[in-house]
Amino acid sequence: MVRNIKLTIAYDGTKYHGWQTQPNKITIQGEIERAIGIITKQRADLIGSGRTDKGVHALGQVANFISDTNIKSDKIKIALNANLPKDIRIMQSEDVPMEFHSRFDAHKKTYMYQIYNDYISSPFYRDYSFFVPYVLNVDLMNEASKLLIGTHDFKGFMAAGSQVKTTVRTIYNFELVRKNQLIKLYITGNGFLYNMVRIIAGTLIDIGKGSKDISCISNAIETGDRTVLGYTANPEGLFLKEVIY
Amino acid sequence: MVRNIKLTIAYDGTKYHGWQTQPNKITIQGEIERAIGIITKQRADLIGSGRTDKGVHALGQVANFISDTNIKSDKIKIALNANLPKDIRIMQSEDVPMEFHSRFDAHKKTYMYQIYNDYISSPFYRDYSFFVPYVLNVDLMNEASKLLIGTHDFKGFMAAGSQVKTTVRTIYNFELVRKNQLIKLYITGNGFLYNMVRIIAGTLIDIGKGSKDISCISNAIETGDRTVLGYTANPEGLFLKEVIY
Repeated sequence: MVRNIKLTIAYDGTKYHGWQTQPNKITIQGEIERAIGIITKQRADLIGSGRTDKGVHALGQVANFISDTNIKSDKIKIALNANLPKDIRIMQSEDVPMEFHSRFDAHKKTYMYQIYNDYISSPFYRDYSFFVPYVLNVDLMNEASKLLIGTHDFKGFMAAGSQVKTTVRTIYNFELVRKNQLIKLYITGNGFLYNMVRIIAGTLIDIGKGSKDISCISNAIETGDRTVLGYTANPEGLFLKEVIY
Repeated sequence: MVRNIKLTIAYDGTKYHGWQTQPNKITIQGEIERAIGIITKQRADLIGSGRTDKGVHALGQVANFISDTNIKSDKIKIALNANLPKDIRIMQSEDVPMEFHSRFDAHKKTYMYQIYNDYISSPFYRDYSFFVPYVLNVDLMNEASKLLIGTHDFKGFMAAGSQVKTTVRTIYNFELVRKNQLIKLYITGNGFLYNMVRIIAGTLIDIGKGSKDISCISNAIETGDRTVLGYTANPEGLFLKEVIY
């Protein structure tokens, strides 16, 4: 019987060339497709909710694949984990209706961006955060983050050269939490443009250290001008936290 | 002028063959001695508070070295960090009296042992915890840990073949904290035998999952018998947290 199997996946992206299968490169998708091949004896095409770049992590990436394997749905994660490197873990495996599509059906996504803010970097967060040795005004960053909430044209918040039908996106929620040296940004939206979260993170850092004014956010939303915003913060700080269907 | 310089060091031990300098192996001590050589143009012998094994981490290892460099004490950490890999960070550098000796003068040490307790391991804690997929009775582990507090002969809590003058040690404090999947053991003592913290961690895990009785602790203290205790838990979970002088 043909089945549609949904996987929820956590990974440490440090050693991978991003999500998407590429010839002669080690990727997350490639590793999982290889493991599916081993356990089902069939070639599988894994559909992810979206790509993540080199160095970007996931706590809850979602992907699905079609298969006629007779392995029970909850045993699939166990069998895959036994055939995957330890920096990729299948957290959940379940049967879903044949119509389910990880990318088209994704309603919301939450990303987390992690900043390590201290004078000296941490050996333990070097691959999982962006190190910022400047004093940051977190209240101001928080205030700036609220300006992003709502439905806006985020054209200015996109890497140059990206091809998309529309640059209008809705941000539902933005939380900024500081605990000791770690500042975590949680951003939930109906979709994100290429590099959008990293451009937002870089801009909030610039606002926090006083090198950009908070008004640059509304300015970029109004004009679509990328250059009024801050730099694209490093990929290591970025985590795809959750995909909501 | 000859000076005695004390360093407080954090490191991710994953990629190193432990603390101690060894020929043809990459070690923490070796990397720091190399960096001292670069910044002072002199060979230095770094004295650590104690060795850590391959895979073991530190949040606050302490070491000192003698030098006649004229770099200001607080600039030494900056200069060393500029010449060290990112998984080793000098958190503090200070001038101390010539008599100060990192090993002989250490009064107390605190180790942290981290357990990741869930059905599926975490990509992010794989090098920083011991993964235990069994249900653990944390209350019982806590009760057992209290039996270790005090001055006891810990002969049974030592790796076979270790050479020491005395196996009597004092444990001042033991805290066990659970937060979501992480269980952290904090143990403070005047000194620790070889593998002692890892044997304690392995034994508490066995007690927590019900495969050893809590009485094995008093039994090992009374008899000095290693075999009544649990296994030696993996090095990745172990962190040298603090050395107190």
